[in-house]
Amino acid sequence: MTASTPRPPQLTVVGTVALDDVATPAGTANAVLGGSATYFSVAASLFTRVGLVGVVGEDFPRPYRELLASRDIDLTCLEVAAGRTFHWAGRYDGAMNAATTLQTDLNVLATFSPSLAPPHRKSPFVFLANTAPAIQLAVLAQLAPPEGGAPRLVVADTMNLWIDTARDGLLAVLGKVDGLLVNDEEARSLARERNLIAAGRKLLSHGPRFVIVKKGEHGAFLFGRDRSYALPAYPLEDVRDPTGAGDSFAGGLMGALAAAGRTSTADVARAMLYGAVTASFAVSTFSLDALAAVRRADVEARAEELRRFVTL
Amino acid sequence: MTASTPRPPQLTVVGTVALDDVATPAGTANAVLGGSATYFSVAASLFTRVGLVGVVGEDFPRPYRELLASRDIDLTCLEVAAGRTFHWAGRYDGAMNAATTLQTDLNVLATFSPSLAPPHRKSPFVFLANTAPAIQLAVLAQLAPPEGGAPRLVVADTMNLWIDTARDGLLAVLGKVDGLLVNDEEARSLARERNLIAAGRKLLSHGPRFVIVKKGEHGAFLFGRDRSYALPAYPLEDVRDPTGAGDSFAGGLMGALAAAGRTSTADVARAMLYGAVTASFAVSTFSLDALAAVRRADVEARAEELRRFVTL
Repeated sequence: MTASTPRPPQLTVVGTVALDDVATPAGTANAVLGGSATYFSVAASLFTRVGLVGVVGEDFPRPYRELLASRDIDLTCLEVAAGRTFHWAGRYDGAMNAATTLQTDLNVLATFSPSLAPPHRKSPFVFLANTAPAIQLAVLAQLAPPEGGAPRLVVADTMNLWIDTARDGLLAVLGKVDGLLVNDEEARSLARERNLIAAGRKLLSHGPRFVIVKKGEHGAFLFGRDRSYALPAYPLEDVRDPTGAGDSFAGGLMGALAAAGRTSTADVARAMLYGAVTASFAVSTFSLDALAAVRRADVEARAEELRRFVTL
Repeated sequence: MTASTPRPPQLTVVGTVALDDVATPAGTANAVLGGSATYFSVAASLFTRVGLVGVVGEDFPRPYRELLASRDIDLTCLEVAAGRTFHWAGRYDGAMNAATTLQTDLNVLATFSPSLAPPHRKSPFVFLANTAPAIQLAVLAQLAPPEGGAPRLVVADTMNLWIDTARDGLLAVLGKVDGLLVNDEEARSLARERNLIAAGRKLLSHGPRFVIVKKGEHGAFLFGRDRSYALPAYPLEDVRDPTGAGDSFAGGLMGALAAAGRTSTADVARAMLYGAVTASFAVSTFSLDALAAVRRADVEARAEELRRFVTL
């Protein structure tokens, strides 16, 4: 392998890189590193080599770029566009179960059209973070078979905005991915089922081989064709900022699967433990402060603690 | 053993027997059998001989009494008082996460002072369902050591009314019982902690050896001095009436422990599986329709299904 053919990422994520303003009962943080692809990549980079596909503006702080580059995250496909970086401002109240969005400035994201470099197109593991279904479909169209006949696992996230405004596009995405990762409210809304178990099972009929429903402090459910699985969240006494919990969960989950090169429902169930752990680090501080400081050994120790917590 | 010395109950419950009016999105039921001691006894009688300590009025329907008597539930201490049976009317909306109480008529409960028969006083397993802490303390004062040096396990339930109005009495109860069983809101309120994990751990410092926090559709947490445990709820696609879920959980839990004669934290964790299963039957129909029709084999089959659901 020469300098002109960089080591291809085992896991590629397409999503947002953001500058966030966040207020929670534990404090505030302004213009801090955020975005779905950011949380995902940092969590996943604890396990494997990640390719980040996204866009930032010319204002994106150099230390934030260096943080990502220092972690074996391939930034070839992190475009720098004229204008300002995507900006999100939000607030969490009370038990911090839901964010109130105060402001969203798409900025460079408004005209972003992701283009995957050749090595990224062959990534055996791909995560489509929450974006417009049309963009997710455009990315899916760029994917090529992984080299050497490796298994391929493509998982998508979404949000209520697309369920409400681009349902057909979203259902087309569901027909083309292996897994769907949504929160409980999104699962109910997309399946049009009030009961969460019924909703999760119904979503399987739209195409994916498995559906993971994230329930925040209540853990996550996995619905697969051959088996289901329920995992409680890691028991945290102090949650400071829930931003990025879901994307960090996805990063830990997909990172662990990519590192092991495994894709069965049982493998996904086992990898959820790592998702719960990376999410627990993410929410324990603002932005990526804790998650970016964690080492693999910390992750393994907490995974073992969670395993004991849920084992009879 | 002669007719004058009846087989003593292995498990005694002190609580309410009620006639309920319930409305949920799935329908309504009027003047149906309810009450904490009722749900508890019927669930626990799947596992062991239960002694029910409570009171009904002269209007209590004979078929309801016969239902209880047919299940190896000792009704020696089910007093029949002049007046009407305790009556509760409530409604559940939307996802049915919380009851709205529409009416409470204490009736015969207003002047009830539980008196345990000699065999009940020696019960190795005792459950104090939700009542005024003063009454729970009066029952605790009646308990005598079990015969033959058997282990003793006393567990108490409570509600926000007593946390708000009789906190000192409730803390006195906590100092005298082995276990506390509360829902998540009650745990936070009693511990004065917003975070549920912190709340559960803090409650241990008030005396009980373990605390179980019930989270409805999100399962239950066990906090013990030596270990903690998290169990998701049995995955039900159709919930029709959540009334009695907590008491049915308690009945399955205590019934399984009493049948096995076991009291360690690990035993409690394993018995939670049975609590989750009896609760799942209780909420699948109005009143005790499903729970009273279930056989031990149905319980074991669903327990095995839940075990697979939570096992990697």
